[in-house]
Amino acid sequence: MKRKSLDGAVCSIARSLDQVGEWWSLLIVRDVFRGKRRFGELLESLGLARNILSARLKRLVEVGILELRPAGDGGPYKEYALTAKGQDLIVTLVALEQWGNRWTACDLGAPLVRVERATGEEIAPIQIRSRDGRPLTATDMTLIMRGDGRS
Amino acid sequence: MKRKSLDGAVCSIARSLDQVGEWWSLLIVRDVFRGKRRFGELLESLGLARNILSARLKRLVEVGILELRPAGDGGPYKEYALTAKGQDLIVTLVALEQWGNRWTACDLGAPLVRVERATGEEIAPIQIRSRDGRPLTATDMTLIMRGDGRS
Repeated sequence: MKRKSLDGAVCSIARSLDQVGEWWSLLIVRDVFRGKRRFGELLESLGLARNILSARLKRLVEVGILELRPAGDGGPYKEYALTAKGQDLIVTLVALEQWGNRWTACDLGAPLVRVERATGEEIAPIQIRSRDGRPLTATDMTLIMRGDGRS
Repeated sequence: MKRKSLDGAVCSIARSLDQVGEWWSLLIVRDVFRGKRRFGELLESLGLARNILSARLKRLVEVGILELRPAGDGGPYKEYALTAKGQDLIVTLVALEQWGNRWTACDLGAPLVRVERATGEEIAPIQIRSRDGRPLTATDMTLIMRGDGRS
């Protein structure tokens, strides 16, 4: 199914989804976070068809989430790296990962746990907070147009 | 493209993506958060084909993210509501929304801002934190198998 582009939509969730493209794209971003940077590594890790992976990577470069760089080892290959915009997707990825650990079943042995490298301690569940640090729930929040009430 | 099911994958991001299904499903969840609960309201809001929306809603009910309830007004219609599992997607949705506000352009006037209902103040950018509250970046973290190092 070809869905209509949401680039024009006001809602930033819709615009974000349009740029990340679809789930495979977020899985690609996840893999690059995990250190897979070459086309062949991503191909093997994701099990996607070559032409599909190629199209997804092209799109992620076009919207500025990934960039192509010379390989770190000085070899002839290029590798994919996350831009600052791509790195900023870590919050969304970890939010989705924690949701998955809480709500989706896993029969394939021990789930992966995200820990702080320095301490080995599991990180905290992500919380939405007010500017002064109070945890907020969905019903505590609402959406307004920026500029409402401004002179 | 029919992609293979990721239900069996260890990684909880992949499992989460498999349950939320695809971007349209997350947009449906977003709309239910915004108070759209009837099939006709969602149809109008999302601009999806009737049969596609119907299939997405069915899938979201099957995996326990939405449930069908009698309408709150006592009328003959049923309406969709978020389960606890569905409500817990708010963190992922707000993370994606904030990423979109930071990184995607919007030429269509004022973007929507998420505020605390009680104070009208914009909420804080979501941060990933350690158990004792220190902000963590992507490079501060790593994934381990749960149970590593346990007796």
